[in-house]
Amino acid sequence: MKGYEELFSYFETNLKEQAFDNKPNELYAPIQYTLGLGGKRIRPVLTLMACELFGGQIEKALPQAIAIELFHNFTLIHDDIMDNAPLRRGKVTVFKKWDSNIAILSGDTLFALAYQYVQKADTNILPVTLNVFNKTAIQVCEGQQFDLNFETKNNLSVAQYIEMIKLKTAVLFGASLKIGALIGGAGAEDAQRLYDFGLNLGLGFQLKDDLLDTFGDERIFGKKTGSDIISNKKTYLYLKALEIADAETKNKLISFYNNSGYREEKFREVKAIFSRLKVDQLALKKIDGYCKIGKECLDKINLNDEKKEKLHAVAHRMIERDK
Amino acid sequence: MKGYEELFSYFETNLKEQAFDNKPNELYAPIQYTLGLGGKRIRPVLTLMACELFGGQIEKALPQAIAIELFHNFTLIHDDIMDNAPLRRGKVTVFKKWDSNIAILSGDTLFALAYQYVQKADTNILPVTLNVFNKTAIQVCEGQQFDLNFETKNNLSVAQYIEMIKLKTAVLFGASLKIGALIGGAGAEDAQRLYDFGLNLGLGFQLKDDLLDTFGDERIFGKKTGSDIISNKKTYLYLKALEIADAETKNKLISFYNNSGYREEKFREVKAIFSRLKVDQLALKKIDGYCKIGKECLDKINLNDEKKEKLHAVAHRMIERDK
Repeated sequence: MKGYEELFSYFETNLKEQAFDNKPNELYAPIQYTLGLGGKRIRPVLTLMACELFGGQIEKALPQAIAIELFHNFTLIHDDIMDNAPLRRGKVTVFKKWDSNIAILSGDTLFALAYQYVQKADTNILPVTLNVFNKTAIQVCEGQQFDLNFETKNNLSVAQYIEMIKLKTAVLFGASLKIGALIGGAGAEDAQRLYDFGLNLGLGFQLKDDLLDTFGDERIFGKKTGSDIISNKKTYLYLKALEIADAETKNKLISFYNNSGYREEKFREVKAIFSRLKVDQLALKKIDGYCKIGKECLDKINLNDEKKEKLHAVAHRMIERDK
Repeated sequence: MKGYEELFSYFETNLKEQAFDNKPNELYAPIQYTLGLGGKRIRPVLTLMACELFGGQIEKALPQAIAIELFHNFTLIHDDIMDNAPLRRGKVTVFKKWDSNIAILSGDTLFALAYQYVQKADTNILPVTLNVFNKTAIQVCEGQQFDLNFETKNNLSVAQYIEMIKLKTAVLFGASLKIGALIGGAGAEDAQRLYDFGLNLGLGFQLKDDLLDTFGDERIFGKKTGSDIISNKKTYLYLKALEIADAETKNKLISFYNNSGYREEKFREVKAIFSRLKVDQLALKKIDGYCKIGKECLDKINLNDEKKEKLHAVAHRMIERDK
């Protein structure tokens, strides 16, 4: 069984070999640029690992791993337009470097290219693979729309937030694993267990993302903290804080989030409230809860523990990361 | 063999039965709105007709016909953002009625939904159907990017324009027919012949569109003519005129197209130049040429002429239309 690093470099090498250099250049240059920005490649690594877990050759899962990474990058290009985000992985976003028309269209093309890789699955598992992929793609769009809706919505609950990140982020982790498992030869039940493992892992992953954005150590995190608070993003931390705060603190938080000014001062003050209410610790507890459920799903799969160890290690890496 | 009207109402009835009413509403309402705007539904009708041509039941081709119409509507939603178009089929466009984020995302969702219908193909023809669909989707994106590029490009040739409309418009007509043919049981060669018929028909269809936009009779056309000229769109008419005009006329045309003012006056004058150069007649001749090639492709298919008659009739309808 190969670990994260080995599968990461295997994937990276193979992704680089895909040309994506058709005409017109205005369409393909942004695709090459986006894929060249790097990233953790967690999703495709999970696909490869799931395939190997059930005895499959990673080469067989490579097209699907690429499909998932292309799909993920398509969502990043379009999300960046919608969020008006200037930077992605420290570099200028596609719609800022080119323009939003090119970003819309190169995103669309990436989405279609993803399906060209899905299509490479063996005929016997193509229908189920395509089914998982389609369903997930639609859910990710729904999740992004919920996220956009939440910007102007008040009285959000933690449960609604969790449902949103489940759709926007977690289902793709589940799908990455399930598709890899199916290619590796897993039965429907085991593939679903691995999906559930991924779903819970994805929820933990996103909550960890929220936590790092406010409480990360900038020297390790590699980017400035505070962007969620400064942009009034209603994350788990904020919604949990509203849930448990006294009336005065609650009003203070709401008034901060109704204001686009302050910035640094607002970040400091809101972070102090979060700390006082211990929502960071509550978030960690919630993450632990998801990890526990995820591991239980993995435990139910009838394979020896040694084989599952690499997946446990990736889960650990995704959750314990400081960046 | 059923004709256009019968297949149109069969498709319309069945499209209406598809719910597209998941949550969040902000994502699905624009999808319902767009599909409810109507349109000629030529592409899905071609899919159904091609299926029946080879002896297939139209019910079997229905999911693919829906997939193609969803894909087409996805491109319309995104194109309208890029073209900053206020109206589509006489109604407010999605990005104007909602906003561009919702238009991007509901378009993405329509694209993914299209694949959910592609997926319903029988396992034995799913790979080839998916292959045609993917390839076409990518080509349509490429065509749209060429179209965007042409806005700021000078020295375009008629050949470059034809290549652009081939990608942006004609390949989808080809794919609609090819997919229907494959579902109907056509062999690879006949399916390709039908694709080539559709491709040529699509080229004629787009040139007819260009022609109507300038020379259409507004009372029949149902919308104002002149939008291509007023928005400086480099259509076949314009590029052909540049090709054959004397230096003085050429400069006059270029200077008109470098100016966003005038509007009505500009339309009148440019149209007069086009008439004087007879580019409308040249366009008609070119359309006839494509029709002839298309019909030759259809003729090569080894089926009796009576069966092909309905397809000839649709071709005639697409080309001889006044609106």
